[in-house]
Amino acid sequence: MLKTRITEALNIQHPIIQGGMQWISKAELTTAVSNAGGLGIMTALSFSSPEDFDQELKKAHQLTDKPFGVNLTFLPSFREIPYDELIDVIISNQIKIIETAGRNPEAYIGKLHRENIKVLHKCTSLKHALKAEAIGCDFVGIDGYECAGHPGEDDVTSLILLPLVSKALKIPVVASGGYADGRGLIAALALGAEAVLMGTRFLMTKEAPVHDNIKQTFLKASEKETLLLERTLKNSLRVYKNRHAQKVLEMELNGAGLEELAPLLSGMLGLKSLKDGLVQDSLLALGQVVGLIDDIPSVKELIDQIIETAMDIISNRFKAMTQ
Amino acid sequence: MLKTRITEALNIQHPIIQGGMQWISKAELTTAVSNAGGLGIMTALSFSSPEDFDQELKKAHQLTDKPFGVNLTFLPSFREIPYDELIDVIISNQIKIIETAGRNPEAYIGKLHRENIKVLHKCTSLKHALKAEAIGCDFVGIDGYECAGHPGEDDVTSLILLPLVSKALKIPVVASGGYADGRGLIAALALGAEAVLMGTRFLMTKEAPVHDNIKQTFLKASEKETLLLERTLKNSLRVYKNRHAQKVLEMELNGAGLEELAPLLSGMLGLKSLKDGLVQDSLLALGQVVGLIDDIPSVKELIDQIIETAMDIISNRFKAMTQ
Repeated sequence: MLKTRITEALNIQHPIIQGGMQWISKAELTTAVSNAGGLGIMTALSFSSPEDFDQELKKAHQLTDKPFGVNLTFLPSFREIPYDELIDVIISNQIKIIETAGRNPEAYIGKLHRENIKVLHKCTSLKHALKAEAIGCDFVGIDGYECAGHPGEDDVTSLILLPLVSKALKIPVVASGGYADGRGLIAALALGAEAVLMGTRFLMTKEAPVHDNIKQTFLKASEKETLLLERTLKNSLRVYKNRHAQKVLEMELNGAGLEELAPLLSGMLGLKSLKDGLVQDSLLALGQVVGLIDDIPSVKELIDQIIETAMDIISNRFKAMTQ
Repeated sequence: MLKTRITEALNIQHPIIQGGMQWISKAELTTAVSNAGGLGIMTALSFSSPEDFDQELKKAHQLTDKPFGVNLTFLPSFREIPYDELIDVIISNQIKIIETAGRNPEAYIGKLHRENIKVLHKCTSLKHALKAEAIGCDFVGIDGYECAGHPGEDDVTSLILLPLVSKALKIPVVASGGYADGRGLIAALALGAEAVLMGTRFLMTKEAPVHDNIKQTFLKASEKETLLLERTLKNSLRVYKNRHAQKVLEMELNGAGLEELAPLLSGMLGLKSLKDGLVQDSLLALGQVVGLIDDIPSVKELIDQIIETAMDIISNRFKAMTQ
């Protein structure tokens, strides 16, 4: 048992959060995490309509009576996203925590708080974390340079950014980007976090709705098999270093602009790859932490193992050092 | 008190090592660290001749009766370096540990071991760490992407590389790159290290023989004020983002080669800057951890504070979480 300000505030057993992953964190994975004592987070933008999203939330409520959250990412997108309707769906399904990313959630925070929904905003810099606290966010998530997806443009690693932000903010901070096991959990808690949020690690579980080809490929992938794209567009994106990503990178280095790149960046390609097991044919967000992952356990096995390792570090490793 | 395999093997009080810094870690700083219970490391390449180096080691022995080490970096260099003579000086001064970096120390390891000198080899990848263990190094130091100086070419951060290497190796691992305080020390120990090695943090102490202009400038520097040079030369170098570094970067991006860049990369420029307090006029190695540093204590105050914070995390923060 590890009790923190986050486990208390969210009424969960373990300080372990499954971060929103588009197309992946749907009802099955999310509720598996919550049932195992963590907090699962579903991604609103995985659904083609507010109605589909609503149905998936109702399905999740049938699969667990534990708390779970929803991710709502405010990113530049090629399609119009009905944010107001999605938030209404979140409210009507009595979700108690929302993870936001991209633009800050200032426009919605009053409405969310009136419905007793807590807001965890993911940031990649001290400046944005301070802003998130100032506008009333309840928690801040800190994503370091090593994270999957969007690490921001500063290239500052979790080891620096997490203690910096934890010290500067009064609200609890959640560590993400680079965590996969109990060692990382204890490191995060030492650096000032009140929980870890993991994406890549939960993608590599039995319950993640991802083709086994993808999981087996990532199982063999080393910490060196990610790369950063879209740097010139100021929208850096860490992905698996496959043929598709290397092609996009080459085009970028040759000066291709957004218009030329857009078809290759489409999330729908990723959806198809995840379903069909096409490991080379789309951009697949992936963190450096893939190099630390060497199994595909069930979500419960994973969370139990993380807590067991974490407790062992506290009860045995540190105890021996201080005797 | 934190007792680890490193404190036992080196007969030091605290698992804190001051990494070799050219021009900076000379007798005064190094012995201050050893006298405060850590391990100081002097840099052999700070001296213009083996005789000068020998004199400084003799001075250090007068300033402390505690163990201290010597750094010997095997890097591509513009001048001939008399490595054999430097090693003879190390042996005749009865130094018990040597920190090596750059090329691995295979050619010298037999000789060093015959003199009971332990070898800590700094690495920036799992591959090099495994090689270091295979050739008989006693310890491996792991430098992540965030470190000052040379992080290698893989861009893998300490949070990933440290647990990866710690798990793969039997010999003790030392964490470096991104550590400045007790929070970082506990994080490193949780991730599998047996000690932390810090450079930037020890540069920012009263005893570091560096002009106060430099220290005051770094005191205000944020985590975002470093940049990587020499990427195209496959010799990446993290330095303070000053005018000189930005000029070099611009030249690199415009295709300048080593011949054109060499005069601007000279370490002698750095020596002059450190002495005269010229913060804009040379390359000054600096890690992202500068953003976590907000004081210039004495070495003893620093080490005492790190241990106090570390013990507080174990005795109070973790204890409260597990009750």
